[in-house]
Amino acid sequence: MASASPAAAMEWRESRARPFNFSPGPAALPREVLEEARAEMLDYRGSGVSVMEMSHRGSAFMELAERSESDFRELLRVPGNYRVFFMHGGATMQFAAVPLNLLGDKASADYVETGAWSTKAIGEARKYGSVNVAASSAETKFDRIPPFSGWRLDDSAAYLHICSNETVGGVQFHDFPDVAVPLVADMSSELLSRPVDISRFGLIYAGAQKNLGPAGLALVIVRDDLIGRARQESPSLLDYAVNAGFGCMYNTPPTYAWYIAGLVFRWVKAQGGVAAMAQRNAAKAARLYACIDGSDFYRSPVPPENRSIMNVPFTLPDPSLDAEFLRLANGRGLLNLKGHRSVGGMRASLYNAVPEAAVKALVEFMTEFQNEYG
Amino acid sequence: MASASPAAAMEWRESRARPFNFSPGPAALPREVLEEARAEMLDYRGSGVSVMEMSHRGSAFMELAERSESDFRELLRVPGNYRVFFMHGGATMQFAAVPLNLLGDKASADYVETGAWSTKAIGEARKYGSVNVAASSAETKFDRIPPFSGWRLDDSAAYLHICSNETVGGVQFHDFPDVAVPLVADMSSELLSRPVDISRFGLIYAGAQKNLGPAGLALVIVRDDLIGRARQESPSLLDYAVNAGFGCMYNTPPTYAWYIAGLVFRWVKAQGGVAAMAQRNAAKAARLYACIDGSDFYRSPVPPENRSIMNVPFTLPDPSLDAEFLRLANGRGLLNLKGHRSVGGMRASLYNAVPEAAVKALVEFMTEFQNEYG
Repeated sequence: MASASPAAAMEWRESRARPFNFSPGPAALPREVLEEARAEMLDYRGSGVSVMEMSHRGSAFMELAERSESDFRELLRVPGNYRVFFMHGGATMQFAAVPLNLLGDKASADYVETGAWSTKAIGEARKYGSVNVAASSAETKFDRIPPFSGWRLDDSAAYLHICSNETVGGVQFHDFPDVAVPLVADMSSELLSRPVDISRFGLIYAGAQKNLGPAGLALVIVRDDLIGRARQESPSLLDYAVNAGFGCMYNTPPTYAWYIAGLVFRWVKAQGGVAAMAQRNAAKAARLYACIDGSDFYRSPVPPENRSIMNVPFTLPDPSLDAEFLRLANGRGLLNLKGHRSVGGMRASLYNAVPEAAVKALVEFMTEFQNEYG
Repeated sequence: MASASPAAAMEWRESRARPFNFSPGPAALPREVLEEARAEMLDYRGSGVSVMEMSHRGSAFMELAERSESDFRELLRVPGNYRVFFMHGGATMQFAAVPLNLLGDKASADYVETGAWSTKAIGEARKYGSVNVAASSAETKFDRIPPFSGWRLDDSAAYLHICSNETVGGVQFHDFPDVAVPLVADMSSELLSRPVDISRFGLIYAGAQKNLGPAGLALVIVRDDLIGRARQESPSLLDYAVNAGFGCMYNTPPTYAWYIAGLVFRWVKAQGGVAAMAQRNAAKAARLYACIDGSDFYRSPVPPENRSIMNVPFTLPDPSLDAEFLRLANGRGLLNLKGHRSVGGMRASLYNAVPEAAVKALVEFMTEFQNEYG
């Protein structure tokens, strides 16, 4: 490998191909989307101006915005009694928006703690009310989803909050609990990667920068009856009723991010929709987990039943090999494989825009690396 | 004109030039900035990935972010005891962030009401405390800045808020009051268009989509001693201390908007900096106001001493001519001249990226139109 790898790296660089980007987010976007954005940068469809230069209230942007929303609704089969919002600020802004809108006069909300992101959501919710941590995997370093049977739910809670896919730890819900209160899910790192039965949720939100588009935008899907309950102290831009009333244009929305998200939605449709993406994503993840499990060199910290198909953390037998692994991977055009510092090791994020060829190249490299250093 | 204008329109279209965009915002960006963004869309400086696909914590983005901030500080000579934040959500998010951070244990804040935007800021502040409207031009339809001598200031107010340039009404502060409390200014539609003595302000903020970059981003300049006072109920992303502590990366910032803003800052530097922009902007505005004042056809609703050099509203003698004016202007590549519905008539926004040639072309067209219809 020490001799083979530089040659492979050379070959990759000479091919002038784009590298494979396994970043957890902001993450890879489909090449076709970037090419379309590039082609339209100075002139959106004969308007003579960039989308960045267009009034959000002009007909060109309004059409674009409406088409984006209707494509998104179609992709996820969003029922008619749910609103879709394109909001400022990413998922972290929703960590505040959710309690500000949904706590109402209830004393507390239930949260399930399964990793870095649900923990952050809990911290933010505590600014606004009492949080009952209904279940937690903190004791096992967030390596799993606690079984539903052990959850200590409060039937008078304002809502139950989960993070359906933990980007850092790589654990994912593959089933959802039936609960008496509105179920709220942070789906930042998985929305649009697999079909989801929206009707089981009161509210779903996602920061855009994984499967949906650029950072600075959040998509929110919320059931009608949960709109209009915001607390007085909610900033207007975080109030779901304001977003509903003004079509997400109470102020200027993040127009360019909205546009790119719209291109991503059309790309997903062209790929066959969310079911097709799910099939492809499952195959990508299966290939990588098979490489990990089939070796006595790599190891996944997550039990099979809770593994994420989006974010795959794995470790090498000795952390002293990490730097060399990353250096050689980088030379082969396999980028951003470093794991989160809280988990260590490696992490490959396999979002929609990461092609099967990327996973094949990664597995090939991992096999070579193991042969050399194992 | 009925015969001359179509020929001119034809000539413009055949020249394949970009049209002139007088949009109030999102507004024209410098052509050079869009060309650079286009060139780097799929590969930022040999990284192989788009800026949209880069981790905000990676070295490439961190460098870009730091350079953007230092260019911005240099352009506005921001003193060392002020922090600069790149924040989510535009100026409207700051309408909430300002009272959430600065009210502290004070009972109220002073606001001056000079148009649509300061009115909106007042409405948002009332969610968090009592507002003393220290002066207002509502009775004269926001056509002027009330003279400082008549302001009813409260020396125990938490701060005094003004909107230094009202985009809708086209009125602008050309001088600032000396006050006992921190002076806070919404400079959305003028920041970077003229030098400003930052040290006279406690806090300045601006939505990016006028002179700074794409929508979804706000720039905030805040004096150190005003950081760290946020109320408990402030969403973390709106808390200035959190932004200071995390370098505006408590969550993923709007990275692509930040990048474009950085390109704009470099462009302003290449143009000679803010003083050079101010000179050019003053000349552009003077040319347009001269055309308006020199005619008995067009009329400015704003007295000369309060006129904005950024947003120039004007009316035709008969509103029934408006549609024809807009149609013919559009055919000549003079876009987005329609005034705000609350004011009527026309409005030309002359931000930094609107070249002198645009104003010349507009004045030429206005003269021809007057000759035909006057």
